[in-house]
Amino acid sequence: MNLFHHQLKQDAITVETRLAEVLSLTNISGEICRPKKLMMSLRHAALNGGKRLRPFLVMQTGRLFGANQSNLLQIATALECIHCYSLVHDDLPAMDDDDLRRGKPTVHKAFDEATAILAGDGLLTLAFDILSDNSTHNNPQTRITLISKLAKAAGIGGMVGGQMLDLYPESKSPDFSEIARMQAMKTGALIKFACEAGGICGEASITELNALSIYGQAIGQAFQLADDILDVTATESQLGKGTGKDDKQGKQTQLSSLGLKVTGEMAKDLVSQACESVSIFGERSDLLVQAAHFIVSREN
Amino acid sequence: MNLFHHQLKQDAITVETRLAEVLSLTNISGEICRPKKLMMSLRHAALNGGKRLRPFLVMQTGRLFGANQSNLLQIATALECIHCYSLVHDDLPAMDDDDLRRGKPTVHKAFDEATAILAGDGLLTLAFDILSDNSTHNNPQTRITLISKLAKAAGIGGMVGGQMLDLYPESKSPDFSEIARMQAMKTGALIKFACEAGGICGEASITELNALSIYGQAIGQAFQLADDILDVTATESQLGKGTGKDDKQGKQTQLSSLGLKVTGEMAKDLVSQACESVSIFGERSDLLVQAAHFIVSREN
Repeated sequence: MNLFHHQLKQDAITVETRLAEVLSLTNISGEICRPKKLMMSLRHAALNGGKRLRPFLVMQTGRLFGANQSNLLQIATALECIHCYSLVHDDLPAMDDDDLRRGKPTVHKAFDEATAILAGDGLLTLAFDILSDNSTHNNPQTRITLISKLAKAAGIGGMVGGQMLDLYPESKSPDFSEIARMQAMKTGALIKFACEAGGICGEASITELNALSIYGQAIGQAFQLADDILDVTATESQLGKGTGKDDKQGKQTQLSSLGLKVTGEMAKDLVSQACESVSIFGERSDLLVQAAHFIVSREN
Repeated sequence: MNLFHHQLKQDAITVETRLAEVLSLTNISGEICRPKKLMMSLRHAALNGGKRLRPFLVMQTGRLFGANQSNLLQIATALECIHCYSLVHDDLPAMDDDDLRRGKPTVHKAFDEATAILAGDGLLTLAFDILSDNSTHNNPQTRITLISKLAKAAGIGGMVGGQMLDLYPESKSPDFSEIARMQAMKTGALIKFACEAGGICGEASITELNALSIYGQAIGQAFQLADDILDVTATESQLGKGTGKDDKQGKQTQLSSLGLKVTGEMAKDLVSQACESVSIFGERSDLLVQAAHFIVSREN
């Protein structure tokens, strides 16, 4: 196992532990009570042994600047709450209608639809509760910056809008650039936020933040291209979810307009761009370089 | 029309105007694009001529302390986004399954379920975007306090948890205190937040904030009792939605355990408590006193 895989695994364990803490059955100050069934559904949604790529990106970009580890962990946890909520809602029958997620029943299958809707709403709201907490950063302005950026990345002009465009494209047959924009909103915005958040937490300079933004944007695009490729090349047991879905649903993807070969080349170009951008950090960026390569070579 | 009704109407117009601005079709800095259909569904959900009681409470409690009007309007708008999102999700077929809301088709009827889920998610996220904005308060710590309190009031230990307990009570036949707690979470927490938020924005003292909390908690309880009463006494055209629903669904309410007469008396006692609490503000609390009386005497 190379250093990147080791760190990814370590960070995944750390964030899973913190998620289990913030999703405890006991209510915290300012809350009236946490209903048990609701909390079980949130735990089902969030404590599922995911790769935790976004948390890793927060932690690793923050380490470049020696940011406080427990601050980074708070941000990573909040971001993972947003990611997990989006999966719960996307899996609903009215949306992508998925029964399996990482080989386990989706929340509306393990519980029911009403619970899944509320679990998503609860996780989304919790993310902002976590970011607003003193323990996320001692400077309130830094917390505000994180909240503002996350709200924009996750909201109507970001992830939520991207999911809408995925379900209801604005053109009858969207071209490559429209699909790319939809993907930049649906999955790219949160990945980009993950990379910027570590820098914000670690008080990076504008030049440094800019390098992280470019890195985040490039790996976000590469991530989606790799997903498109996996959808046509991987097996169901590799992915822990259905494959060939885009084709079955007649959905236009970047791959369907570019073809498998060009999509693969484009993903590799994006990885190069990403690595080039963080080269200003020298050796310290090694794990981010490995992460970029992992994103296009992963098997699930 | 008394002064309260005049001010309620004025504030409703002001907040509706601001909601229309924040829900514009044009994306703002930090967003990629705002899909048109999504924005139409958000506007359908939020620009519906509601009473805007929560916004009024924010504005009026803030006026006690001479808080900046445009700051108060930002907070009122964010809170109304949360309230409107909760209605959109509560109306979904998997939840309360309502076709009408204020006499108009609910969002999933006017659009579809997927759009309604995303519209709710978008409004919820937008609330935190608005609160984090510079224009909400020049002190970032004040914005953080508002975000933290709103997240707790709206989240798993507040409104979302309350909706869960309403759908799935933890006891087979919940007693009065369990129903009261569920209601305190489902509707009380946001109303209490509305009353505290004006004070926070206007830098009220701890004693003053405490008076507002007690006022908010009492009118929140009274509001729910009045809702229970309206559900059995009002006509469908008065309410702009179905009536007698609690009974049809065999749902336990505070009214079903107390009876109509005692429920009415209890609501009046709560109004007295609320008025007593804000009496420390002298004549300046007149509109809040009128608001408390309105809450139990309204016809819809």
